[in-house]
Amino acid sequence: MALGCGQGARLCGRARLGRPALKRRAPAAGSLARPYAAGGGEAASGEALLEVCRRRHFLRGGAEPRPWRAYLSGCPPGFGPLGVALRGNLAAQWWEAVAAFREQVFAADAPLHGPAGPGAPLAGDDLRLVPSETLREALRGGGREPGGPSAEEVLGAAGLLRESLLPGALAQYVNCLELVNKRLPCGLAQIGVCFHSIPESEQYNENLSRIGERTTSSLVWFSSARTAGQWLDYWLRQRLQWWRKFAIGPSNFSSSDFQDEEGRRGFNLCYDFPWGKEAIETLINLGDTELLQMYPEDRSKLLGRDGRKNVIPHVLSVSGNLDRGTLAYLFDSLQLVENPLMKKKNSQRKVLKLHPCLAPIKVALDVGKGPTTELRQVCQGLFNELSENRISVWPGYLETMQISLEQLYTKYDEMSVLFTVLITDATLENGVVQLRSRDTTMKEMMHISRLKDFLTKQCG
Amino acid sequence: MALGCGQGARLCGRARLGRPALKRRAPAAGSLARPYAAGGGEAASGEALLEVCRRRHFLRGGAEPRPWRAYLSGCPPGFGPLGVALRGNLAAQWWEAVAAFREQVFAADAPLHGPAGPGAPLAGDDLRLVPSETLREALRGGGREPGGPSAEEVLGAAGLLRESLLPGALAQYVNCLELVNKRLPCGLAQIGVCFHSIPESEQYNENLSRIGERTTSSLVWFSSARTAGQWLDYWLRQRLQWWRKFAIGPSNFSSSDFQDEEGRRGFNLCYDFPWGKEAIETLINLGDTELLQMYPEDRSKLLGRDGRKNVIPHVLSVSGNLDRGTLAYLFDSLQLVENPLMKKKNSQRKVLKLHPCLAPIKVALDVGKGPTTELRQVCQGLFNELSENRISVWPGYLETMQISLEQLYTKYDEMSVLFTVLITDATLENGVVQLRSRDTTMKEMMHISRLKDFLTKQCG
Repeated sequence: MALGCGQGARLCGRARLGRPALKRRAPAAGSLARPYAAGGGEAASGEALLEVCRRRHFLRGGAEPRPWRAYLSGCPPGFGPLGVALRGNLAAQWWEAVAAFREQVFAADAPLHGPAGPGAPLAGDDLRLVPSETLREALRGGGREPGGPSAEEVLGAAGLLRESLLPGALAQYVNCLELVNKRLPCGLAQIGVCFHSIPESEQYNENLSRIGERTTSSLVWFSSARTAGQWLDYWLRQRLQWWRKFAIGPSNFSSSDFQDEEGRRGFNLCYDFPWGKEAIETLINLGDTELLQMYPEDRSKLLGRDGRKNVIPHVLSVSGNLDRGTLAYLFDSLQLVENPLMKKKNSQRKVLKLHPCLAPIKVALDVGKGPTTELRQVCQGLFNELSENRISVWPGYLETMQISLEQLYTKYDEMSVLFTVLITDATLENGVVQLRSRDTTMKEMMHISRLKDFLTKQCG
Repeated sequence: MALGCGQGARLCGRARLGRPALKRRAPAAGSLARPYAAGGGEAASGEALLEVCRRRHFLRGGAEPRPWRAYLSGCPPGFGPLGVALRGNLAAQWWEAVAAFREQVFAADAPLHGPAGPGAPLAGDDLRLVPSETLREALRGGGREPGGPSAEEVLGAAGLLRESLLPGALAQYVNCLELVNKRLPCGLAQIGVCFHSIPESEQYNENLSRIGERTTSSLVWFSSARTAGQWLDYWLRQRLQWWRKFAIGPSNFSSSDFQDEEGRRGFNLCYDFPWGKEAIETLINLGDTELLQMYPEDRSKLLGRDGRKNVIPHVLSVSGNLDRGTLAYLFDSLQLVENPLMKKKNSQRKVLKLHPCLAPIKVALDVGKGPTTELRQVCQGLFNELSENRISVWPGYLETMQISLEQLYTKYDEMSVLFTVLITDATLENGVVQLRSRDTTMKEMMHISRLKDFLTKQCG
């Protein structure tokens, strides 16, 4: 398999027991080349996308423009309402593919922070959580004032923010095993925010926080050592297929294998951004090391049933960065289309052709010519009907600023809205609406009573 | 309205600009009476519930038994897989009620931490986030060693963990306004984890973290000052109805009004736990103070359209604690039922009668007499069919340990499983399965082809 994302490999290799992946360096730091800020051919499309994504509220801008790098490294603020909805759809698809239809996968939940413990060494990029009062006292006294907390006490009281979902899942292994009556394989799935330090070299603005956040998907899979290799291959195939399923350019999603420092086998799934490949998901067969280290006192608790044998399982970690995945699909979806109506230069329309499952808004409802009040009532009824069928609707009919239909379509294409429904006085007469497709730009007439079924089929 | 939850009122009153609700004391601290640990009549049912919830993986236990207080204060570990699924269902219902069907509500996302800023004072219960290295250097030097970071620098570099979703939503107001083309009212909805300090008096185990986490639901609603009072009443009615909708004992959910220190009007929604009322959601009309303080430079940016007028909106905050909500429904759902088959004392069956929408598992599939392989194949097919229709299924047929049907039903009643489907050799012959209901304990025969439609109707 193609090489190119080796950095993730080395990083995973540092995973150790106790809080294994807290030690793993965040994938946010693993870019191969610098995401450009401006200039050059490919860069121009990146810039154009950035501008569209901000204007259409997929991404949030700050007071000043931010490069892709800032979004990629998980430096807040990240997504705007449309981006949040897109990531939400991606997360729902992940859950369906990994957890919902599987007999032996359960939902896990783990706190975002844990106790550091008095003996825990202060590692370089750990993130410590300290109540203000304790911090103030410690800083005043430097740990040497009589009566004030000692440095040791401050460190003991400090929490540690999670940098991976793996330790939380391992901590629930014994519970999970009980739930399946010790039958292997089984898995724990979770989606949640993790934290990471942003290295100084990646900070594009020194006034901002050095701490990044990312929405992480995690499947931790427990199987017998005998089958762990096959399961790794199974999940690799599943996960790569899954990423490609929603893509216009599936070949931009690729995998590369690695071995960590302890010789453990893993794979990075990458997206080929204009500036190079970036890992969006990492699979690794961790063996039983972390599990044994987490439960040092009693190994018999760890035993699961593999057929008639009782075995200590091997641990497979499948960990994705859904924020980066969302950015990947934004890049994947951008299409520059010649606008036949405008013959000027730079007349390219920008269309975000997100997969129907992922598009945050499936249909926009707008009114054309006709009596405003009546048309809006029709829209309102349709809004309710479609919403109840879990089709997300953009209430364009509430808009009072008049713009031309072409301007409207251009706006909705940038918002990745799949269909635009136009309600006019004809609708009041004979129930027919105009339906315009984002992908074909074709318009067709349809009876309003058929809309729900048509859209359900198209958007599923 | 009934009084009794006044503490939330005072606390909300402390909300100030900049990071308003970060200053608000966490509702987790607002218990009126001490949740008991043991003893006494009502307490006994609480103890029994705790035991069932742990045994059936709604709650996670630690190495030692924990009282309700620990779960209530958000002290990890909290929920087990079934509890996570229950809370997930509650969150989905919240989203449907508050965001999904509303034209003018958008999904918000905000980072879990923000910069404290060099000038931010160290308030008593703020939670500071410091990279280990900085903390180590500061503790070594006490801020006075040449070359080391000064106390000021450490504080400036420290992040602040969010204690409420309100500031994040306010920071997105201008973006939200752009999205709706300045039309009021509009709202931002979000579900996410918030942090809070657990006061020393509430800590049941001093070895554990002093930092609690809670899953928070937040709707921030922007409307003209003219209509803000009506909107507060509207949302109060909506939210109270919503909580009661899923309850066996709706009257245990109640509201109480309050005024904060600045005379702003609000309501607490409470659940009447055996030890007293606890706030599970708080609504407050904050006026425009926080908004004006967050955007001090340019008020014109804040102007939204109320009909033909341009106005600075008033802010309504509707903030719930979904973890506590989940605990409330666990208490609400517990029923002690006489077991007619067992005539001994203490023969009460415990049934968790969670609302069909909320029950984490809708149906369990089990096999009775007959050829194992064939029966399991039928189960597997049914598992897939039901899962694809978003009905959550418990794969009881994977179980190889034989227990009696009565024991099985007892277990599923404690897991709040709505229906148990039994596949036997009769199913292979004529397609008929046995269906047992949690709520009626009645068994009926049904053709396997009717199951999907029946369950979809029952579990919706």
